[in-house]
Amino acid sequence: MDYESLLAHRTHTMQASAIREILKVASSPGMVSLAGGLPAAESFPLEIMEELTGAVLAKYGAQALQYDASEGFLPLREALVPHLAARGVKATAEGITIFSGSQGILDGIGKILISPGDVVAVEAPTYLGAIQAFNPYEPRYAEIETDGDGLIPESLDRVLADQRVKLVYLVPTFQNPTGRTLPLDRRHAVAEILRTHNALLLEDDPYSDLRYTGTPVPPIKSLAPENVVYSSTLSKTFAPGLRVGLCVAPAPIQRWMITARQGVDLHTSTFTQALAAEYIAAGYLERQLPRILDIYRPRQQAMFDALAVHLPEDFAYTRPEGGMFIWVEGPPGFDAEALQRRILERGVAFVPGKYFYVNPEGKQNTFRMNFTAADPATIERAIAIVGDAIAEELAASR
Amino acid sequence: MDYESLLAHRTHTMQASAIREILKVASSPGMVSLAGGLPAAESFPLEIMEELTGAVLAKYGAQALQYDASEGFLPLREALVPHLAARGVKATAEGITIFSGSQGILDGIGKILISPGDVVAVEAPTYLGAIQAFNPYEPRYAEIETDGDGLIPESLDRVLADQRVKLVYLVPTFQNPTGRTLPLDRRHAVAEILRTHNALLLEDDPYSDLRYTGTPVPPIKSLAPENVVYSSTLSKTFAPGLRVGLCVAPAPIQRWMITARQGVDLHTSTFTQALAAEYIAAGYLERQLPRILDIYRPRQQAMFDALAVHLPEDFAYTRPEGGMFIWVEGPPGFDAEALQRRILERGVAFVPGKYFYVNPEGKQNTFRMNFTAADPATIERAIAIVGDAIAEELAASR
Repeated sequence: MDYESLLAHRTHTMQASAIREILKVASSPGMVSLAGGLPAAESFPLEIMEELTGAVLAKYGAQALQYDASEGFLPLREALVPHLAARGVKATAEGITIFSGSQGILDGIGKILISPGDVVAVEAPTYLGAIQAFNPYEPRYAEIETDGDGLIPESLDRVLADQRVKLVYLVPTFQNPTGRTLPLDRRHAVAEILRTHNALLLEDDPYSDLRYTGTPVPPIKSLAPENVVYSSTLSKTFAPGLRVGLCVAPAPIQRWMITARQGVDLHTSTFTQALAAEYIAAGYLERQLPRILDIYRPRQQAMFDALAVHLPEDFAYTRPEGGMFIWVEGPPGFDAEALQRRILERGVAFVPGKYFYVNPEGKQNTFRMNFTAADPATIERAIAIVGDAIAEELAASR
Repeated sequence: MDYESLLAHRTHTMQASAIREILKVASSPGMVSLAGGLPAAESFPLEIMEELTGAVLAKYGAQALQYDASEGFLPLREALVPHLAARGVKATAEGITIFSGSQGILDGIGKILISPGDVVAVEAPTYLGAIQAFNPYEPRYAEIETDGDGLIPESLDRVLADQRVKLVYLVPTFQNPTGRTLPLDRRHAVAEILRTHNALLLEDDPYSDLRYTGTPVPPIKSLAPENVVYSSTLSKTFAPGLRVGLCVAPAPIQRWMITARQGVDLHTSTFTQALAAEYIAAGYLERQLPRILDIYRPRQQAMFDALAVHLPEDFAYTRPEGGMFIWVEGPPGFDAEALQRRILERGVAFVPGKYFYVNPEGKQNTFRMNFTAADPATIERAIAIVGDAIAEELAASR
């Protein structure tokens, strides 16, 4: 049968992601992967899972195994109210919607807003998973320029003035892929620009709880609540295998997202939502988070230290106060894909930066490295290999 | 802010489902709901959940909480091989894909196949959740005629001859909403028609394990494997709150569905998949299924018995050998929505049949009743109320 002829037009926008192939190679035995964005297995609260399951079954019984509302499991939404308030996001339980990971929120917002040809504004570079979620709805992209402090407000203002934009998509805190955090003054500027242009922002905030140093910055949602759909997840502070994402959106947007997701997956697993509810409400998260930070802080420091030693002077890298990634920019003309081939042979993997741009031209000199999945000694060894390979690559290309 | 102006064209196809409002009313305290499609809480293997969780954590540890492949958790896919083979569906572990409920399969196939205006052929009546999944991709529908044995093969042949059809959607066994099962000879005819027209069928099979009497009929997938995407779920034989659906598709279709779902939810909960793997592989399902059937068999019988007593002679109803639903057809002109209003006042709810048609005209005389969620005595009481209300409604409309 000729299956290809049955495909929808949109399906040709879904490229079997090259990064997926990289991650497949990166996960082969013996490989040190700085490529993925995996939480450390050691960060999972394995030792309390049986206790937590017991508590959930005792408390909710059959309800934890039954169909539930598309909006989300009410005890989880209630437990999230103070958790989000502590971040500066004010919401009632009814105002919080649960999705199947924050990926489900990206799909949901794309589905209700993007008609083919509509414009979505994204940072350059931006999160690859967002592009994967939006592409099937066939948007055009407008790129917002960034510098060391993240998105440049004047560039956002220009993009919004130049054309009708359906959605602005940002990861303002410990961005994936750069690790950059937008400073408070820029957040105020972004909030003002959104209001001026009546624009809607999807603020993707998976990492803000993973802060190793410095002071928290309030989310843009807290500065322009009517203009922001706020998205977060328990994947980094509980476990990604539960697939629990959460969303605080203006009420009309929330209603449409709930209607849309009924057709997509009905609702998120009641059982994993009940585990998450108990994890937060009974104080497990509060106890676990410092442990998670204690695992990641020295890993990030090890990467900083190794980069200082092993990277040539004309290579710049970000120094985020949290999150999971460091972003490296080589001199103009440097080929991160060639470097990738060299280090793969020696058992180390990262992701070339070009995959994080909707327009990758001229970005071949960048790459992203994750520091949460390997221990400090392994990171030190891996960065030394990267350093050696860079020296060889520079010598070869001269 | 004017949020409505931001909506995509497709979003106007997503009507906040009227059935959802019915289900909301139906789930209010004191109401006897024959409206939903909920498994009985008593059918869940609650007493083994702690043991099962313990086994999963001992066996898989952190892997059960980590990100996993979009294709599905390999031990679950392996466990499903003999389970599906017993139904007549031959597949390797690699050929089985796990989705977030079978709703995720409906969304996935719609997403990769349907461009706006493409034709999807569905039974009249058909499963409402499929319409909700397909609508956002803006198909046109062609209706396939049915009789007491389900779809009429000649009608399918005509529909496929008349126009290019991207997808045929059927629930051949214990259909939702009618409970009807397509007999073997018609399945052979359908297989032949699919082959003749090079057509692709989505065979939705959530209920075939719920057989109370009679002999199993092989799935159409077993008769035309190249032309069929086979979909099933563990929602009826384990628990819907886990959101585990499974799919066996021709390889090219499988690949595109996996690529599409990466943007939708990345993957189904690893933890609930691991629970499902252990539930099947360790023999829990085999022990639980007879118990589930023992709960539902007398409930169905109670509904049959009560209908025989309380329904007027010119009301026809289906007598399925399994599944969760019975379908009632009143005389022409009978108004099931007026009946619905009458019984709601007396604390009983069902779903008017018109919601299951893409073209509901002239179908106001039908309704669907679920028999799995209430015990036999309650069903007897509820059907007596329905019978009284029908008599009043007939008297009032004379």
